[in-house]
Amino acid sequence: MLCDLGMNIQNPGAARDLARHHYNGDVLYTFGLGTFSEYSIASELAVVKIEEDIPLDVAALCGCCVLTGWGSSVNRARVKVGDVAVVVGCGGVGSAAVQGARMAGARYVIAVDPVPFKREKALEFGATHAAGSIEAALPLVQQISWGELADAVIMTPSTLYGDLIQPAMELVRKGGVLVATAVAPISQHDIKLDLFPFAMSNKTLAGCVYGTSNPRSDIPRVLKLYREGRIKLKEMITTRYRLEEINRGYEDLIDGKNIRGIIDFSL
Amino acid sequence: MLCDLGMNIQNPGAARDLARHHYNGDVLYTFGLGTFSEYSIASELAVVKIEEDIPLDVAALCGCCVLTGWGSSVNRARVKVGDVAVVVGCGGVGSAAVQGARMAGARYVIAVDPVPFKREKALEFGATHAAGSIEAALPLVQQISWGELADAVIMTPSTLYGDLIQPAMELVRKGGVLVATAVAPISQHDIKLDLFPFAMSNKTLAGCVYGTSNPRSDIPRVLKLYREGRIKLKEMITTRYRLEEINRGYEDLIDGKNIRGIIDFSL
Amino acid sequence: MLCDLGMNIQNPGAARDLARHHYNGDVLYTFGLGTFSEYSIASELAVVKIEEDIPLDVAALCGCCVLTGWGSSVNRARVKVGDVAVVVGCGGVGSAAVQGARMAGARYVIAVDPVPFKREKALEFGATHAAGSIEAALPLVQQISWGELADAVIMTPSTLYGDLIQPAMELVRKGGVLVATAVAPISQHDIKLDLFPFAMSNKTLAGCVYGTSNPRSDIPRVLKLYREGRIKLKEMITTRYRLEEINRGYEDLIDGKNIRGIIDFSL
Amino acid sequence: MLCDLGMNIQNPGAARDLARHHYNGDVLYTFGLGTFSEYSIASELAVVKIEEDIPLDVAALCGCCVLTGWGSSVNRARVKVGDVAVVVGCGGVGSAAVQGARMAGARYVIAVDPVPFKREKALEFGATHAAGSIEAALPLVQQISWGELADAVIMTPSTLYGDLIQPAMELVRKGGVLVATAVAPISQHDIKLDLFPFAMSNKTLAGCVYGTSNPRSDIPRVLKLYREGRIKLKEMITTRYRLEEINRGYEDLIDGKNIRGIIDFSL
Repeated sequence: MLCDLGMNIQNPGAARDLARHHYNGDVLYTFGLGTFSEYSIASELAVVKIEEDIPLDVAALCGCCVLTGWGSSVNRARVKVGDVAVVVGCGGVGSAAVQGARMAGARYVIAVDPVPFKREKALEFGATHAAGSIEAALPLVQQISWGELADAVIMTPSTLYGDLIQPAMELVRKGGVLVATAVAPISQHDIKLDLFPFAMSNKTLAGCVYGTSNPRSDIPRVLKLYREGRIKLKEMITTRYRLEEINRGYEDLIDGKNIRGIIDFSL
Repeated sequence: MLCDLGMNIQNPGAARDLARHHYNGDVLYTFGLGTFSEYSIASELAVVKIEEDIPLDVAALCGCCVLTGWGSSVNRARVKVGDVAVVVGCGGVGSAAVQGARMAGARYVIAVDPVPFKREKALEFGATHAAGSIEAALPLVQQISWGELADAVIMTPSTLYGDLIQPAMELVRKGGVLVATAVAPISQHDIKLDLFPFAMSNKTLAGCVYGTSNPRSDIPRVLKLYREGRIKLKEMITTRYRLEEINRGYEDLIDGKNIRGIIDFSL
Repeated sequence: MLCDLGMNIQNPGAARDLARHHYNGDVLYTFGLGTFSEYSIASELAVVKIEEDIPLDVAALCGCCVLTGWGSSVNRARVKVGDVAVVVGCGGVGSAAVQGARMAGARYVIAVDPVPFKREKALEFGATHAAGSIEAALPLVQQISWGELADAVIMTPSTLYGDLIQPAMELVRKGGVLVATAVAPISQHDIKLDLFPFAMSNKTLAGCVYGTSNPRSDIPRVLKLYREGRIKLKEMITTRYRLEEINRGYEDLIDGKNIRGIIDFSL
Repeated sequence: MLCDLGMNIQNPGAARDLARHHYNGDVLYTFGLGTFSEYSIASELAVVKIEEDIPLDVAALCGCCVLTGWGSSVNRARVKVGDVAVVVGCGGVGSAAVQGARMAGARYVIAVDPVPFKREKALEFGATHAAGSIEAALPLVQQISWGELADAVIMTPSTLYGDLIQPAMELVRKGGVLVATAVAPISQHDIKLDLFPFAMSNKTLAGCVYGTSNPRSDIPRVLKLYREGRIKLKEMITTRYRLEEINRGYEDLIDGKNIRGIIDFSL
């Protein structure tokens, strides 16, 4: 995703040199990720082969959500055996981050979300503790880490507002990392960050796109873990919608009712 | 420097459990680094043995300046052979960062400083290009990197104001790192940073104290390089002062006249 | 353990400059690890503080066995989430290696041991498969890895004979690592290794002492995982002996009856 | 080079699914590297684009020799600023390894070769010391490293005989690495290696193919360094031959007369 060629995947049609999606002669922009459609045209550069036994609903989650969260913990924060990890925001991406952190051997995974349903689900996905806010997480993290704080904090809220950074950074131990995964408002130019203690504690703020994953190797890696029952993907699908119900899907998303909702063409 | 025990080095007297510096019964705070004195009392935890052939003026630079800059490039940015590195602020710490980046094999090292004298010195220390400001560095970096921008940008200005971060981050390539080494105002709580492109480009903002160095291994490492003529340390000393001239030393520091000034008790 | 100072820990008495263990005026050699005694004299350099709630039988395992095996997987092989790991030899060290690999997120852990009891225990410690020999493991590893072979193979047999290396290396995938942890005969100067495919496949043979661990940070790390029930240490103790039974302990060790036997002074 | 797809590059014709080189209907095997020809047919998977200003004689060296040696030091040994590196065998690959180690900031680079001409050239390529044999190198390395020995030893002799490994490993410091780059006889199944001290010193034996390089990023990286005069490539070409002189080229190779000989079609 970081190579210059890869950027073209974001182009209309996701093709190397030609826009492949048209409607009445106009080029359609498809975000490069998907089109809520049964068929699509994609560049061979944008395609990852999966095995036939992988259910398509599970595979659909790996286009962004699962790899983005799992990779934030595994590839970007590089959670190690015995670490303390905090995941802020436990929707689809955060639920995958919780699983990634736990799978990498984190001693504690603290899930932070204001929605009780999402906290409950996070505990099912492997979180050891939950808190309703960053503020509520601080004394908890202090206590269970014996004052050492978190090795890694993964930011996966719905929107990455700049004033979340400093409170989240206060959860991070000396030498630890804050992973900025969620999408920030494009028009936002300021963040709260106390640079003095940040530098003096040798902390890291790590931007993260698509979980810093290599799709060609990491999608198959995650799907092999799924096959062995080591990562819960079906369980991340809260609701299935017919295409006609798509607007209800967006409402549920906004209302915090879903870990993940999918359009299921078999319904 | 990151261990909990290490923090005690900052205590008055730099001793494990006792304040060792007193004046008329009052404990003196010595900043843990030095005291402009010929003799001092230090904890064995705060002492690094050096060989007898190392001149003390050279050794004095390694208490902070040299390791902080050199380590910012070598340990924290992990500059690799062929990289493009930018060093913003070319006083003592920056001059050491320039040398570290060049020594690690950087293809280009762009020195940024408003003071012509410091840019000239940076070129002597191994910078391949120089610019008077971050703004002036941008088109230069774009051109010489063929649009790929810098693998690493090291921030070593006199003060790390928060509004320097975003312009400096715009010099950083996808997947690259901005190292925040300089001291920021303690009362500063905001920085300029466009989180959206920062995350989408998988960039890193890396706080850095004492060059992320291990004093026990890195001070001897640097001094061995000095002995082989691979790092210029004597050349970093612009002016030598007698103790009585210390206030002139501070004035010269503020006026940008020195790469490094030292109190020389032999004068 | 790799520093020059650390080597002194192996000296008689394990003290910095003085032999502390004597008998009738003769210096006693204590191997630096332990003395089957209730009290000992140790250098402060050789001591790691543990918390009061840690049972001493559990702590005793961490002097060598647990850290050596766990660290072989976690620190030296750097097993990653989704990897395939093989552990050859499933006594105490191997049982800890199995747990380390599983804890680090290995998709499969294949335990290899000729003794059925040890294979059974390995499965309890988290191995997903077991085989009676390296030869029997090969088709198994080929099959479950879809022909890609193992990311990491950890060698923890009772003795590391040189003719084990090539067969074990054939279990290792391109770019993978074979960790040589077990003690080899000092008089052995040859090993079997086909250098041509070894180099052409960019494989690694990694010597490993004490699990490439840092005792000061890794012993507390493992004991915190123990406290959370994430690593099984009590379960590694097969038999407890009174000091008078020490020779039976050695017999059981040789007969392959123990994962770990300990001298328990409370019996 | 390590991916499964990449292996196909070694196939006849270096094409994805078809043999492209024929003579009178027979498929020709072209070793995947080159054909001493002015034109060739290659799979797009086996092609790396270079800029027009790069001379073809320089580019020709990067198909194997330069990247193999340079990458052995930079990518595989990961030579760091201040390290001590030894390069055993200073033909084309070794000369590139010497340059890689120096470029990465090695404090000392000791070139080992029985041929005086090659030792002289190695010193021109940046070696700081030279020795005629591994045995002669040992006291030299001991002395200049103050007894700490070498961080990295790169093995680039004409043939990697198994009895070279132990003497070379004795040059390696605790925690250091021996990189096995040269091609070993396929029929050789034994190497000399004292496993006991190897494991007890946490050393590494690292197989290395094509310098553990990524051709798509590392060939351009090296050529950019060439453009800046940071790596000497023209200087590695000792003799240029016309195609008719190819057998003399092989004789000179065997007689140790060349760092690198090339067929130059412009002669």
